[in-house]
Amino acid sequence: MAASPRVGGFAFAGVSCGIKDGGEPDLALFVSDRPAEVAAVFTRSTVPGAPVIVSKRRSRRGPVRGIVVNSGISNVAMGQRGLDDAEAMAAEAAGHVDVAPGRMLVASTGVIGTPLPMPRICRGIASAAEALAAGGLRDAAEAIRTTDTWAKVASRSVKLGSRRVRIAGVAKGSGMIEPNMATMLAFVFLDAPVDRTALRAIWREVTAETFNRVTIDGETSTSDMAIVLANGAAGGHPVTSPRGAAGRALRDGLQGVCTDLAKDLARDGEGATKLVTIDVEGARTPAEAERAGRRIANSMLVKTALFGGDANWGRILQTVGAGEIRLDLARTEVDLCGVPVFRDGASTGEKARARAARRMGSPEISIRVALGAGRAATRFWTCDLSYDYVRINAEYTT
Amino acid sequence: MAASPRVGGFAFAGVSCGIKDGGEPDLALFVSDRPAEVAAVFTRSTVPGAPVIVSKRRSRRGPVRGIVVNSGISNVAMGQRGLDDAEAMAAEAAGHVDVAPGRMLVASTGVIGTPLPMPRICRGIASAAEALAAGGLRDAAEAIRTTDTWAKVASRSVKLGSRRVRIAGVAKGSGMIEPNMATMLAFVFLDAPVDRTALRAIWREVTAETFNRVTIDGETSTSDMAIVLANGAAGGHPVTSPRGAAGRALRDGLQGVCTDLAKDLARDGEGATKLVTIDVEGARTPAEAERAGRRIANSMLVKTALFGGDANWGRILQTVGAGEIRLDLARTEVDLCGVPVFRDGASTGEKARARAARRMGSPEISIRVALGAGRAATRFWTCDLSYDYVRINAEYTT
Repeated sequence: MAASPRVGGFAFAGVSCGIKDGGEPDLALFVSDRPAEVAAVFTRSTVPGAPVIVSKRRSRRGPVRGIVVNSGISNVAMGQRGLDDAEAMAAEAAGHVDVAPGRMLVASTGVIGTPLPMPRICRGIASAAEALAAGGLRDAAEAIRTTDTWAKVASRSVKLGSRRVRIAGVAKGSGMIEPNMATMLAFVFLDAPVDRTALRAIWREVTAETFNRVTIDGETSTSDMAIVLANGAAGGHPVTSPRGAAGRALRDGLQGVCTDLAKDLARDGEGATKLVTIDVEGARTPAEAERAGRRIANSMLVKTALFGGDANWGRILQTVGAGEIRLDLARTEVDLCGVPVFRDGASTGEKARARAARRMGSPEISIRVALGAGRAATRFWTCDLSYDYVRINAEYTT
Repeated sequence: MAASPRVGGFAFAGVSCGIKDGGEPDLALFVSDRPAEVAAVFTRSTVPGAPVIVSKRRSRRGPVRGIVVNSGISNVAMGQRGLDDAEAMAAEAAGHVDVAPGRMLVASTGVIGTPLPMPRICRGIASAAEALAAGGLRDAAEAIRTTDTWAKVASRSVKLGSRRVRIAGVAKGSGMIEPNMATMLAFVFLDAPVDRTALRAIWREVTAETFNRVTIDGETSTSDMAIVLANGAAGGHPVTSPRGAAGRALRDGLQGVCTDLAKDLARDGEGATKLVTIDVEGARTPAEAERAGRRIANSMLVKTALFGGDANWGRILQTVGAGEIRLDLARTEVDLCGVPVFRDGASTGEKARARAARRMGSPEISIRVALGAGRAATRFWTCDLSYDYVRINAEYTT
């Protein structure tokens, strides 16, 4: 296993508190030794989990000191009790690291419909607080997993003038979890000093182009969140603008970390056998580019064709057309794994299609669609739809 | 096999012209012995097939005499040649029944990317014209099939005052066909006299509540169309208003025929093992009711749970929430196969869930979701997502 990346002023832990059967890690703690600026994006679900409600309020208010997360049971649809439990979890963690309770964020992911086992969680928080270590990020990544088949960690270091700052993050995803909910959680940490406005502007852009461009099955969870903390431990002048040289360098670093995590989420989608990168070009508007990419990424017909290694440009164009997205068919281009399969309003022939199909045997597939209707472009990541997706999601029995 | 329903003044035929391997029927002809008023709805795809373009124009213009349809190859993305072929097909059919070419509608369904074999089609049209018979509707239904596993026919008779009029229709669907396109085609015939405005108003309402409420996998084809012809052969005063007693009776009859066909389309969705009826109630607006129903019907997570017989209210609420549809969780109700599984903001318990799961073993499943946010309601039909859907759509190889 690769060494766990470190970020100045942060300590991390992942422990087992007994929510999951079999003693797998299920409680993670992320702590900064000083107040950290925070930016966050949350699910837009109209059935948000209690931790989403609590963390959203706190992250708006300002600097925080950490995040406590449990996996195995998700705190959703439990009414006032859910809110009380989320606040109690955060308070317990805050007490152990000696900060105000309102400075601790909270997240949960797992099955819903069961209350959190608070005594176990509190014992887990105590042992996580003892285990906190600069090198603990990988343990924390393990502890936020649900149906993910591996822990997802990414890091970068970035030069801001003469200073080197570090960025590292973790994520979990994997489509949906038994019996109910998908959750995409991402937590990213950096030791650069960044003022709040700049951090929020950068995070909005970065998440829009990374986590918001990954889709496994078109679902959004009640508990999705992506949070970045910047604690300034690396010292130096704060980054005050997303557009200056330092802001751009920071953005690139964050984009790199989040792209790695986002691609890992797609690669590890439930039942996935392929990582699929979709480039849409030539759309009339950015909104149509996004809609086209999202439709292709979520189309069951496209995804089953990818699973089957079928170079099926027809299904790709059909789902774009069905989205009422403007295109000029005579100028539309479709490439599969770099092979042009649709040009001048027609198939480029069976030989090209067969060549593309052979390349689609590899674990990474690229789709490029140019719509010939404008200049907007975007990129999405997804996975194929396999028998295993059906098995994982159908064979769970209560 | 049930007798083929008859409708005054109409004759039908279905023959084999050699597009499909194995001599299966692949050419259908529907003809009225007098001009018939027409109402039609078409795919909104931005990549419409040539027959859609031609038939849309002609149906707007006014009375028509028939419809010619081939299955096996769909006339899509072929440029000017596609338009020429569609018009030639219609002209050939019109010639054989001795009407103006502009009075014949045309449709195609099947694989795309291959030009229509026009000489075969023309020979097929000649033999279909010879085979035309009042009792030929079932043959015609056979000839428009692609991956449908059975031919879909429905009929009703309706009393309009002292007259009895007859309504019969055929449809094909079944999700998508190799290698590219789904197509939903529906053709309905009635012998009542109906004026154009009333027929169009009634058809718009009926299709919105039937064919537009069926979804197999969220895809819309390049070739979808639903057409009704009313030839007045039953005689009597024309129906001039959708709201009078006669208009309402006619509407109910059409709604009955189209509901039967729509449910059959869902029941025969690719890989389907269950027919699923989804009732959404208590939505804030009709648009939100529709969005909720469509999201539930198309959610891969819900559909795999239905396949697995899992009484998973969580996935249902999660996909509604993800659609940013307003609901009051404390007043939200979910019933599965008539068993209340979610009330007062929480699960009704494992016993109810187990009872619902047992009932979900039957071939018909009902889902009722009341959102507690308003008074809008709608109904959708869909099917589950099985291994066979993946197999059918993944294992096709070119």
